[in-house]
Amino acid sequence: MTCNGSERTAYSIKEIRAKEMLVQLMRRVGLSVSIDGVGNIFGKTQGQGPALMMGSHIDSVPGGGRFDGVAGVASALEVAQSVLEQAVRMTHPLEVCGFSAEESSRFGVGTMGSAIMTGELNAGHIMGLKDRHGTSLEQVLARLGLTEKDVNNSKRRPSDLLGYLELHIEQGPLLEASDKKIGIVKAIAAPTRMKICFLGRADHSGTTPMDLRRDALAGASELVLAVEEICLRQVQKAVGTVGMMSIAPNAMNVVPGTVEMGVDIRSVSSQAKREAAQSVMNRAREIADRRRLEVDIVVLREEEPVALDSEMASLLEDVCSSMSVPYMVMTSGAGHDAMNMAKITRTGMIFVPSYMGLSHNPDEWTNLSDIELGANCLLQAALRLVAK
Amino acid sequence: MTCNGSERTAYSIKEIRAKEMLVQLMRRVGLSVSIDGVGNIFGKTQGQGPALMMGSHIDSVPGGGRFDGVAGVASALEVAQSVLEQAVRMTHPLEVCGFSAEESSRFGVGTMGSAIMTGELNAGHIMGLKDRHGTSLEQVLARLGLTEKDVNNSKRRPSDLLGYLELHIEQGPLLEASDKKIGIVKAIAAPTRMKICFLGRADHSGTTPMDLRRDALAGASELVLAVEEICLRQVQKAVGTVGMMSIAPNAMNVVPGTVEMGVDIRSVSSQAKREAAQSVMNRAREIADRRRLEVDIVVLREEEPVALDSEMASLLEDVCSSMSVPYMVMTSGAGHDAMNMAKITRTGMIFVPSYMGLSHNPDEWTNLSDIELGANCLLQAALRLVAK
Repeated sequence: MTCNGSERTAYSIKEIRAKEMLVQLMRRVGLSVSIDGVGNIFGKTQGQGPALMMGSHIDSVPGGGRFDGVAGVASALEVAQSVLEQAVRMTHPLEVCGFSAEESSRFGVGTMGSAIMTGELNAGHIMGLKDRHGTSLEQVLARLGLTEKDVNNSKRRPSDLLGYLELHIEQGPLLEASDKKIGIVKAIAAPTRMKICFLGRADHSGTTPMDLRRDALAGASELVLAVEEICLRQVQKAVGTVGMMSIAPNAMNVVPGTVEMGVDIRSVSSQAKREAAQSVMNRAREIADRRRLEVDIVVLREEEPVALDSEMASLLEDVCSSMSVPYMVMTSGAGHDAMNMAKITRTGMIFVPSYMGLSHNPDEWTNLSDIELGANCLLQAALRLVAK
Repeated sequence: MTCNGSERTAYSIKEIRAKEMLVQLMRRVGLSVSIDGVGNIFGKTQGQGPALMMGSHIDSVPGGGRFDGVAGVASALEVAQSVLEQAVRMTHPLEVCGFSAEESSRFGVGTMGSAIMTGELNAGHIMGLKDRHGTSLEQVLARLGLTEKDVNNSKRRPSDLLGYLELHIEQGPLLEASDKKIGIVKAIAAPTRMKICFLGRADHSGTTPMDLRRDALAGASELVLAVEEICLRQVQKAVGTVGMMSIAPNAMNVVPGTVEMGVDIRSVSSQAKREAAQSVMNRAREIADRRRLEVDIVVLREEEPVALDSEMASLLEDVCSSMSVPYMVMTSGAGHDAMNMAKITRTGMIFVPSYMGLSHNPDEWTNLSDIELGANCLLQAALRLVAK
């Protein structure tokens, strides 16, 4: 089940090719296509009034899987095709979307396409962002013929939309572990992200007695375990991760002088997230004091969890019940475009199972029969919302 | 007291320039210069029979200090100059040496110049070593006109030497903390170096519940603290350091799947070193078992501590006492060329204080008056050994 990994980084050649293919598929289905100033792709059925939007994102992390994002876009396209093929009479148009730059891997900001469309972000927030090669988003968009004005013109009015439904792979192990086929998302956790830097003193590993050391890595290691313990025992509704660490000078024979670490704390409860983040900061300061280190804490992001629409969730529950599909109501630990959409329209989200919870990984896998089942739920939900 | 750091990496342009300068200084003093097949520089006074060799190394780590190595070479040169200026009549010649490639930073092997000269290593051990740019030592030496045969011809016979004295900065905080001006080294600690790799599973930081994680960094953090605790409390004669760590995928939003860490354990007691290393390995396996990680342990080097010559140490003690210099007998936590020299000749070593114990650092500092005092001790010791 291994492939070499998807490489549809935001605005890369491969991502642009994938969007071109999406445009072709939309046209073949009979949708009328538009592309906004940040590269979001929309394909709409005929008809007036607010549209039921369905979709997800096109881009991937580097070395990502084949399902994250595109499973939702493909399912939405399939729903639109079914509805058109069966000539279903509709009260409202359907609109399939393929969002740009949901992954933060290139420019450090996630769900960018949907954030621009919903007005959560505007051009001023994003045009100056640079990738690791120093190329700015402004330069990248300019190559596609897109300007700051185009970006700001991409904002859609809430009155354009009847609602938003997104199918996405779970990217976690819970559906598989519970033997459920569908997850109905009631809330999306938000991250608090911190950069914590311990500053000690780089010393020779052979000549510096243990009790005279100011070892930044020993301090950082205590904090890694503290983050784990806080989220495992103290604040149970939160998850906390130290995913990255940069050590200097990082040499076999030098006591580490500086360690910079990234801490990611998530919860669907603002309070649990605040409590966990506060505990982590307190522990960092306590460790630094005891070990004669300096500590610098920068909160990079502190986002609010997003509740999705409860009526949409009830509708999805009804659909699953009527189809006898084993489902569970759950929260999402990962961020999604649905977070932004929920700010401007009634939003529901369907998860399908991820093999072993793997994601952002070439081995990411969802059985095609599970995606088909998810797409059928999406179709039934859409029909309940727009069929005459 | 800050400079930009020395950049005399082994066989770099700057190191070669420094050696050219050393050759000029040796000739100006009146020494007869020879260069061996690995680039070690020797400057000898006239006279027959085995020589008293004095010196240290010329190369530095990248961004290193101004004293590590060259303080010993400069002091030895000063001693030779004094002896020649004062026309001291000698029983044996003096030979000043400036060794190549004492630092392991370029080719991963330390004390290479003196190891070749003493036969601890031969060309077969080193010619294939590559630097991080993929350039082999063979290529580097070829550019200097040196062949494998030249390297193997660099081995000196024990009968060439009366003894070896090396002055070096302490690179640790003990002399400064004890208010002593001279350290007389009785033994040099040796490292056991291990690469320990924990393999867990990379998972999404938002979607993976705390209790289902196999977090390689949490396991590695436990081991960092275990290394510290073992050497601080359990095996007190050893020091242990985790100086480097490499984390994959090393992203803010991914539970670390793999962590590779370098563990450096040193002691002047073989037994203490073995005990500490064994405890670290046991702890690594226990952590891996408990956390459902895989662990891979590779012992990279396991060297024997080296005792220096006790008569040389007594001679140096007598010299310090007669000069009323506050001294202490101590061990060296760092490796030195004297380790290799001790295998073929009576070897003594003098430490001078390091400001705050700093070394391998642009802020490395020893008061010039302290180096002068050390050089005077070296002179007196040399006179006792070779003056008629």
